[in-house]
Amino acid sequence: MTHKVEAIRWSNGVLELLDQRVLPHEEIWHSYTDAAAVAQAIRDMIVRGAPAIGITAAYGVVFAAANAFATAQVGWKQALVDAMNTLAQSRPTAVNLFWALARMQRLIDALPDEHSPESALLEEALAIHEEDYQANLKMGEAGAALIAAECASPIAIMTHCNTGSLATGGHGTALGVIRSLYKKGMLSHVCADETRPWMQGARLTAWELQQEGIPVVLNADAAAAHIMKQGAVKWVIVGADRITANGDAANKIGTYSLAVLARYHGVKFMVVAPSSTVDMSLSQGDEIHIEERTSHEVTHVGGVAMAPDNVEAYNPVFDVTPAALIDAIVTERGVVLNPNTQKMQEMMAG
Amino acid sequence: MTHKVEAIRWSNGVLELLDQRVLPHEEIWHSYTDAAAVAQAIRDMIVRGAPAIGITAAYGVVFAAANAFATAQVGWKQALVDAMNTLAQSRPTAVNLFWALARMQRLIDALPDEHSPESALLEEALAIHEEDYQANLKMGEAGAALIAAECASPIAIMTHCNTGSLATGGHGTALGVIRSLYKKGMLSHVCADETRPWMQGARLTAWELQQEGIPVVLNADAAAAHIMKQGAVKWVIVGADRITANGDAANKIGTYSLAVLARYHGVKFMVVAPSSTVDMSLSQGDEIHIEERTSHEVTHVGGVAMAPDNVEAYNPVFDVTPAALIDAIVTERGVVLNPNTQKMQEMMAG
Repeated sequence: MTHKVEAIRWSNGVLELLDQRVLPHEEIWHSYTDAAAVAQAIRDMIVRGAPAIGITAAYGVVFAAANAFATAQVGWKQALVDAMNTLAQSRPTAVNLFWALARMQRLIDALPDEHSPESALLEEALAIHEEDYQANLKMGEAGAALIAAECASPIAIMTHCNTGSLATGGHGTALGVIRSLYKKGMLSHVCADETRPWMQGARLTAWELQQEGIPVVLNADAAAAHIMKQGAVKWVIVGADRITANGDAANKIGTYSLAVLARYHGVKFMVVAPSSTVDMSLSQGDEIHIEERTSHEVTHVGGVAMAPDNVEAYNPVFDVTPAALIDAIVTERGVVLNPNTQKMQEMMAG
Repeated sequence: MTHKVEAIRWSNGVLELLDQRVLPHEEIWHSYTDAAAVAQAIRDMIVRGAPAIGITAAYGVVFAAANAFATAQVGWKQALVDAMNTLAQSRPTAVNLFWALARMQRLIDALPDEHSPESALLEEALAIHEEDYQANLKMGEAGAALIAAECASPIAIMTHCNTGSLATGGHGTALGVIRSLYKKGMLSHVCADETRPWMQGARLTAWELQQEGIPVVLNADAAAAHIMKQGAVKWVIVGADRITANGDAANKIGTYSLAVLARYHGVKFMVVAPSSTVDMSLSQGDEIHIEERTSHEVTHVGGVAMAPDNVEAYNPVFDVTPAALIDAIVTERGVVLNPNTQKMQEMMAG
């Protein structure tokens, strides 16, 4: 892979994760060799972004299986169950996590009991990682082509959270489309929502874009409507943590707000995610379990208390954008305009 | 005045301002005896909130005039011009500042050249302060009555920024309505937007409400749409920094976003401000000068850098909500439903 920014590396039996909690001021890599620590890293948001969580969990399965075989030998598949559950419980909303674990489980089921599963599972994890990167390149092209076909001159794109190389196996989903659009010379600049409470826009997206010289202007989330009213932004492009069968999309809190505001201002709205993000088992978005995290993430910023002590805060991490507010869903399987259940089924079957 | 929280005190020739930059963790009062320092306090946001800025500026005029008379004697009115200009240039958007200065200027014009203007001007400044408090009590009653008439049981109210005792001469504008609604037993809780970048919701509104035991739940600004979708919030209530002749309202950045989201979700939208906030000289909102402040306020939180060095941020401090998205404007002169130019003229003439 030739992309400059990366967040997940496999190196000689060690998983290395770039600590996304301390970016952009510190670039600290942590090393992992066991599954429980990998699950904790996902829970603690050392790694975040739906595709990146899936890739990381797949590597976690490699450690879990190696350990299970070392201790239980032919009973390794049974010995693996607890570790798989721990990985599955690390974050609830991103379906890529469960998709990656299910893909690893299918291989586990097919492997013999009497041989070490480590190399086969590692190969699968590496494939998940590489396929995600390739899918992002493909989505980037498809999304950028859709936009470029409509625009005569470079336009501004608004995005939310971080969906770039840091959130994926490389290139990015929404940020992949933005990268591809920039290469086409059709991007004037990126309006990056800072994305409270975790500030992924300020800390990660601004940093990633800056690394590659792509023009970025940061804004407070609440300024998005005012910016849209000014007219430069033609598309909002976001990622997704789970897309249901009808095209409803769960993504970082604030995404739904942008979708409503985009529709009001005549700005188009694109969701970019690998097909591993699509959960055809859920018919619509209100069936998605939305993770709520601690008040502390809202009452404090960068370790500094903002609110008075003991004030309650409501901290839903995701929200659901209904398909009716989405102009295009882009996956590596293709582009779905004005998504609905039938079109989503066709795309997933195709 | 019997309200518990206050931000502006006049005591024996000294103006005292509660430093709103360091609340809620420190309650520091600064003392002022000259106009230039008062203007700087407004510029530095030691005091903020449109009505509070107007009151503070009025006290600033008292210092300026006393000083002008001490140095220039009968030429004091001419000697005062520079100090008046400095006060006028401290913040651009809140019209209450200019309203208060104009009211003080009218008295200055009427005063004799040969006597010290200090006591007469102090009386006027104290009157501006007290009248603002009384206006807030009246608006609180009127706004709460409008809501209570529509609701069978206690409801949740969403608000943005801080519009309470800290932002006014006491009781508050939007927060005054919320206080009055709470006294009527018709408030379940307040959903307080944290209000980036200055965090007035987290730092000031949460603190003010907590002081009086009014239930408050803080949220990231970007969570507002998700919260509205859940259905508990029936009204969004905000203040204003300037209202134009047609009922368009400039207020803290993020207010316009809430107005669009409220309309989409069938949530009603109320703007509460004294009539000194109404600027009948501007026909509509796009004529309002919107203050832009430094990138630093977005890239840093509580002194901590969030974004990478040298990243650009766009930091408009206010936005404009069109009258068409406002269900009610409440001033001390009365309630204007579905505001337009004719109704605003009638209200201001009445």
